[in-house]
Amino acid sequence: MPAYSTNMRLKFPILALVLEVITIILFGVFAVYDDGKGHGHDAPSNQTHGDDNPMELYPMFQDVHVMIFIGFGFLMTFLKRYGFSSVGVNLLLAAFGLQWGLLMQGIWHLDDGKIKVNIFKIINADFSTATVLISFGAVLGKTSPVQLLIMTILEITIFSVNEHLVANILEANDVGASMIIHAFGAYFGLAVARVLYRPALRNGHENDGSVYHSDLFAMIGTVFLWMFWPSFNSAIAEAGLVQLTAVINTYLSLAACVLSAYAISSLVEHKGKLDMVHIQNATLAGGVAVGTCADMNIGPVGAMLIGFVAGIISTLGFKYLSPILASKMGIQDTCGVHNLHGMPGILGGLAGIVAVAMGKKSNGNAAMQAAALGSSLGFALIGGALTGLIMKLPIWGQPPDQNCFDDAVYWEVPEEEEENEESLAHADHSKNKTQEA
Amino acid sequence: MPAYSTNMRLKFPILALVLEVITIILFGVFAVYDDGKGHGHDAPSNQTHGDDNPMELYPMFQDVHVMIFIGFGFLMTFLKRYGFSSVGVNLLLAAFGLQWGLLMQGIWHLDDGKIKVNIFKIINADFSTATVLISFGAVLGKTSPVQLLIMTILEITIFSVNEHLVANILEANDVGASMIIHAFGAYFGLAVARVLYRPALRNGHENDGSVYHSDLFAMIGTVFLWMFWPSFNSAIAEAGLVQLTAVINTYLSLAACVLSAYAISSLVEHKGKLDMVHIQNATLAGGVAVGTCADMNIGPVGAMLIGFVAGIISTLGFKYLSPILASKMGIQDTCGVHNLHGMPGILGGLAGIVAVAMGKKSNGNAAMQAAALGSSLGFALIGGALTGLIMKLPIWGQPPDQNCFDDAVYWEVPEEEEENEESLAHADHSKNKTQEA
Amino acid sequence: MPAYSTNMRLKFPILALVLEVITIILFGVFAVYDDGKGHGHDAPSNQTHGDDNPMELYPMFQDVHVMIFIGFGFLMTFLKRYGFSSVGVNLLLAAFGLQWGLLMQGIWHLDDGKIKVNIFKIINADFSTATVLISFGAVLGKTSPVQLLIMTILEITIFSVNEHLVANILEANDVGASMIIHAFGAYFGLAVARVLYRPALRNGHENDGSVYHSDLFAMIGTVFLWMFWPSFNSAIAEAGLVQLTAVINTYLSLAACVLSAYAISSLVEHKGKLDMVHIQNATLAGGVAVGTCADMNIGPVGAMLIGFVAGIISTLGFKYLSPILASKMGIQDTCGVHNLHGMPGILGGLAGIVAVAMGKKSNGNAAMQAAALGSSLGFALIGGALTGLIMKLPIWGQPPDQNCFDDAVYWEVPEEEEENEESLAHADHSKNKTQEA
Repeated sequence: MPAYSTNMRLKFPILALVLEVITIILFGVFAVYDDGKGHGHDAPSNQTHGDDNPMELYPMFQDVHVMIFIGFGFLMTFLKRYGFSSVGVNLLLAAFGLQWGLLMQGIWHLDDGKIKVNIFKIINADFSTATVLISFGAVLGKTSPVQLLIMTILEITIFSVNEHLVANILEANDVGASMIIHAFGAYFGLAVARVLYRPALRNGHENDGSVYHSDLFAMIGTVFLWMFWPSFNSAIAEAGLVQLTAVINTYLSLAACVLSAYAISSLVEHKGKLDMVHIQNATLAGGVAVGTCADMNIGPVGAMLIGFVAGIISTLGFKYLSPILASKMGIQDTCGVHNLHGMPGILGGLAGIVAVAMGKKSNGNAAMQAAALGSSLGFALIGGALTGLIMKLPIWGQPPDQNCFDDAVYWEVPEEEEENEESLAHADHSKNKTQEA
Repeated sequence: MPAYSTNMRLKFPILALVLEVITIILFGVFAVYDDGKGHGHDAPSNQTHGDDNPMELYPMFQDVHVMIFIGFGFLMTFLKRYGFSSVGVNLLLAAFGLQWGLLMQGIWHLDDGKIKVNIFKIINADFSTATVLISFGAVLGKTSPVQLLIMTILEITIFSVNEHLVANILEANDVGASMIIHAFGAYFGLAVARVLYRPALRNGHENDGSVYHSDLFAMIGTVFLWMFWPSFNSAIAEAGLVQLTAVINTYLSLAACVLSAYAISSLVEHKGKLDMVHIQNATLAGGVAVGTCADMNIGPVGAMLIGFVAGIISTLGFKYLSPILASKMGIQDTCGVHNLHGMPGILGGLAGIVAVAMGKKSNGNAAMQAAALGSSLGFALIGGALTGLIMKLPIWGQPPDQNCFDDAVYWEVPEEEEENEESLAHADHSKNKTQEA
Repeated sequence: MPAYSTNMRLKFPILALVLEVITIILFGVFAVYDDGKGHGHDAPSNQTHGDDNPMELYPMFQDVHVMIFIGFGFLMTFLKRYGFSSVGVNLLLAAFGLQWGLLMQGIWHLDDGKIKVNIFKIINADFSTATVLISFGAVLGKTSPVQLLIMTILEITIFSVNEHLVANILEANDVGASMIIHAFGAYFGLAVARVLYRPALRNGHENDGSVYHSDLFAMIGTVFLWMFWPSFNSAIAEAGLVQLTAVINTYLSLAACVLSAYAISSLVEHKGKLDMVHIQNATLAGGVAVGTCADMNIGPVGAMLIGFVAGIISTLGFKYLSPILASKMGIQDTCGVHNLHGMPGILGGLAGIVAVAMGKKSNGNAAMQAAALGSSLGFALIGGALTGLIMKLPIWGQPPDQNCFDDAVYWEVPEEEEENEESLAHADHSKNKTQEA
């Protein structure tokens, strides 16, 4: 069955090298340092940033960077045998995606035919990779690195078109990207997952679960995402009080979200116990949902209400909706991105429409906000479906059903008998323990 | 025995939801964004911060944020079966605590009847949660999330009273909070632990220990706390050279403390080996102990002496004092907070008295420093004892002795047989391995 | 055999305490806070930093701090039984090294006979420890903490001489320290490793390998190093556009490096699988190699080419060169620092010569760049060999061959039988499970 080739030799290295060489050539043609003298068309919200200090946004950038590489990477290490791929392929996709994103976003803002690279642009490049990493969560364990590199190119290209439409044509507000990153990335990934549906996994897979320490590794990702989300939602906000507003709204939304996520998790689980899947994910829904409104004058209480509702919706989604999507609709969403990014992203978009209609943002237009939400969902679903069809081509290879959720397909994995051996042998360091056993 | 109810259904979710709803209502009444135009009564030390740039302290805030959520959270994951609770309940308590702290601290500084939220205030809100997380360490493994939410409300309320007294009435110096956070949090927690004393755990508990990888998870917490402690001690210091002084003093105190903690650990342990408990904790005592003096003109050498002594005291405390507290005084201090926060906190307070008496701080008064230390200890011991009595009410539930230090009481924990199975089954993915075995 | 003493009692604590006491005395004599009024001779590149705000570089400092303590510390936890030593001894050496580095670097820049401590100086102090941590990687698992403290003193002292020569006498450019830190640290460590050659380890050691979760811990180190490397390479660059250039060059070099490292890893491994050793290390080679040129006008494409080549060289080095060094030349390089820091460091030095010759740095001189590279390699090889001879003295103790790569020699390690027992016993907490089994 040629579609299920696990051997990446040649296929993967050639693709990676060719993509990188093409990218380097494109950078040679287009990319220069920003000397601060250009007439660039950066997002209007950033007008006051970096005029005198080109490094002003650098600490914000580094927070976002940590979310992309540690946050997303470790969040997905919850699977018992898929940690290498989670954090390792996350690094691969994000490292390629930020280069591709810099090019795709940059071509809309050429300045004398050049992309002038600065901190604002590399923040946006990191942002563009977030869409891919969200979609990665939906297909985690069921796709090859080759397929995922293809997805990265296509998704970031489509994202850049939608982002340009939303930000520059519709002139909609989405400072924290509830719509253009979170909802977009989630529904893009769900569309891909639908196309790549595997009937054989309908009843689960022995490796599609966590062990004790893999859940702790995942909490590293959760907590770094949770802490730095105020930077994500405020990084490209207008400098000064507007940026402060985005920080405070996100800080408070996330705090309120934790309480509702914990409460609902306990309420719906056996004997009132807490479920790590909910805690790892639903506690972050408040950051997603407050994104569009983050820089609006919704008041601390408005932000907390959004976070509170997001925590409830997200937890209920994990408990009741995900099983239905898997069993009835053929959508096998490994990380539950629908619950963390999909529904909270839509909630954020809707909250943005309401907030703008209520006049919470001086330059807002509720119809344009609605159009932005529709555009993001439309591009995501159609783009994701087409991308899924391309990813399904046998040429890229994908793991056979029985090898899903298993690093050993794509990684040299240390033999686990070793672990037992060294554990037993530890006391006296005798080397011949295993031979005797 | 109704006091030992492990079933959290209804009790926990109702409490969490009710607390969050009340908090949101209070935020609706009191909280607004700081527009920079108010006549707030922030701590005098902060007069020069943020006047022109409301985001100036944001990187400092994020460092403190990492200490609260990653630092404290992972530091407590050293227990072999209590990692979910350590990092998960840490997140819950801190997320609720920062909201409650913002309210409790804010009511002392109302501006036109409003709490004007800014970066300075959310740093202080994070600080207020640190007291709870320190106390959490003393009762780790022996309390329910319901009990701990109750403790959070009471402790932050009492903390805010003492902090107001120390900072605004006594006008004492405690920039790094050796007294009002570390000593307060430790003795509050020890008082609670005393009231909740469990005779059945006198001879230890099989789960009250670490495994190899849980000790490594704990080192994530240790190292992040160690690295960002200069931010903790300088975040609310006067801008400019005073803040620089606080950074340098903390940086050097911590460095000196590492050497003395390692040396004493090796000196007192079997065959000169190092003990992970000491390394995880006593290396941080220098950050605690230099807190009060951090912004004073004690000189680099003064800071290093404080750190050096703190590392010795803390390590000796773990080795010789903790066993006595447990066996003779009925104080079962799971994380040894007395050694990391209690004694070094008092050392910090005493060093502050001496430094002020020696004129190392222009606006200092040694008597007021002594009063601040006394006040912090008094509020902690009495407040902690009262809080312990309330926490002991059977209604809140607490784990039975045999289920202490075990996540499985409050969390869905992945079955560990799975881990063995997948380990063995990894080579050929045959599902029936365990049945055969 | 007295050379193989594993008992650290007295030897280690006395050395640590004596070193710290001497250091404190020296700080008492020399160190004062920088009051901003001095006539210091900081590196010329820093002229415009901190004139008005002494805390300007603080976020950069914290990024570097994370690289030193989390990055290097966890990168080395890949060994299955050596995680305590990796992160714990890393903390010890870095904490002592930064104090020693502050003194050794400071004596070249005395101001009225004093070392005026500021953020710029503590960044450089952290930098000086990086050389030791790189060398530590070469001898990881085969040296005692006592030996390593000796190495720390000697290496930082020699580093400070070479750095002064390169920066102030030759006036060569090395903003990201490809030569003076990475190449220096690597070849110093390799020279030490050569002197400490252990023939008995020629055929490997059962503990010289990873287990699944130890590789994940190591990825924490890798990813934090990868993310914050732009701060490492730009921290002491000239403020403004030059610093921005250093950030962008490093960001892009690292991104390109990831693609080539993954591609080559897959190309050379069995069945095209990825190898964790390559991913953990070679993905960082781009940060090393772009160091010298980071603040030069090499263009984004120049930075990417450097990173691309570095990823290839580094991965090939792990696959083909390291085995030869071990088998033919008696250089047992535990972490492969030659591949991550050695060759990429030389590549960086060579790239610097070329870039300066091409006029990419206004104040550069190609001959001086070449002299700086030669000086760094010379000091490293000779200094490392001498240091190795001193470390070989029986008095310091070193672990016997069979106890290499084993924490239990120097640490109290939790008994692993416990882990199995509690794992099995977890379901019903019956203690007699294991006896029955």
